[in-house]
Amino acid sequence: MDIIKALNWRYATKKFDAKRKLSVKQIQTLEEILRLTPTSLGLQWMKFFVIKDQKIKDKLFAVSKRQWQVENCSHLIVFSIPIKTDNKMIDQFLALIQKVRWTGEVALQDRKERIKALLGRYKEANQIDSRLAQQVNIALWNLLTACAVLKIDTCPLGAIQPDMYDKILWIKKQWFKTVLACAVGYRAKDDGYAKVKKVRRPIEKIVEEI
Amino acid sequence: MDIIKALNWRYATKKFDAKRKLSVKQIQTLEEILRLTPTSLGLQWMKFFVIKDQKIKDKLFAVSKRQWQVENCSHLIVFSIPIKTDNKMIDQFLALIQKVRWTGEVALQDRKERIKALLGRYKEANQIDSRLAQQVNIALWNLLTACAVLKIDTCPLGAIQPDMYDKILWIKKQWFKTVLACAVGYRAKDDGYAKVKKVRRPIEKIVEEI
Repeated sequence: MDIIKALNWRYATKKFDAKRKLSVKQIQTLEEILRLTPTSLGLQWMKFFVIKDQKIKDKLFAVSKRQWQVENCSHLIVFSIPIKTDNKMIDQFLALIQKVRWTGEVALQDRKERIKALLGRYKEANQIDSRLAQQVNIALWNLLTACAVLKIDTCPLGAIQPDMYDKILWIKKQWFKTVLACAVGYRAKDDGYAKVKKVRRPIEKIVEEI
Repeated sequence: MDIIKALNWRYATKKFDAKRKLSVKQIQTLEEILRLTPTSLGLQWMKFFVIKDQKIKDKLFAVSKRQWQVENCSHLIVFSIPIKTDNKMIDQFLALIQKVRWTGEVALQDRKERIKALLGRYKEANQIDSRLAQQVNIALWNLLTACAVLKIDTCPLGAIQPDMYDKILWIKKQWFKTVLACAVGYRAKDDGYAKVKKVRRPIEKIVEEI
């Protein structure tokens, strides 16, 4: 497996082949990749909506600033974060750790204090949303690199209207809100951007060995 | 190649085998992975310092809050961003695009305006540093996922003292400043954390198909 080849093959796909769909098994793999993304303290305070329904995709396209990928991709993945964080969520997370690892009470309490301290610092700096969004970005980039290896095309979509996504997908009902989206599928044969040469600074400008 | 297996194999390595070093060829691959990371508008405003010198690593360990990985990893990679951004940097970037793609003057001017508008918005919101740091995080997570595929161990290190890193590595002389670091190498056989079961929320809690 040549990772460099895969990363050179990857590009932000501008036009997907609307007829080529990812299989159920491929989608399960992508979901598992997202699930395995490491997060701060392991909290995983995020939810992914994987949309294949064309009517829904068409509705979302209307609020995606003419990014046609939303319409012609195989699946659109919407990345969301909780509207608010509370102690109940922390307790649920600790219960999960205990179930998987049989962690003792003292270690769990210690972790609870660390989580609370971290969230406290974020809240004080008014950074809760931006920090949770950062975690979601990790999931995005984990997915993008993994997809390159799997030869699945992707295009991250930051310039969408998150509020409208929330409404169309009823995300707020679940106490989550949209951060960004990512289109996945197969590039169209006539997507000219696939042939454009990648621009990257020479290695000696960007790396120094010490 | 099983990407799921690779991501399950990956963990934040707590103890590296100090005797096992990555080869020159492996390091070149990692550097190329970093270089190929996609960035906003393609700017690549970042620099990576790849440190194998043990004396330097030992000095950095002293300002890394007792994270022993800094000392026992094969190589430590320091991720940095420019201290300030200016028109000269934009022009250098446009010259590179022109060289690689033979892009016409009009398209280049258009891109220049887009870059300036974006930077203007960031500056206004006092977000230049955080946005550049976000780009560096993309490079980090691209590297982490790629390393999992290559069976190279990693540990991202956020809790370091960036100012002290800057001093030890003379980074500010190059008009850059440290954001974070990542240790790479091979896990020690007795790193107990390698055997701890991963805690992840069940797929139905974290993914919804529509």
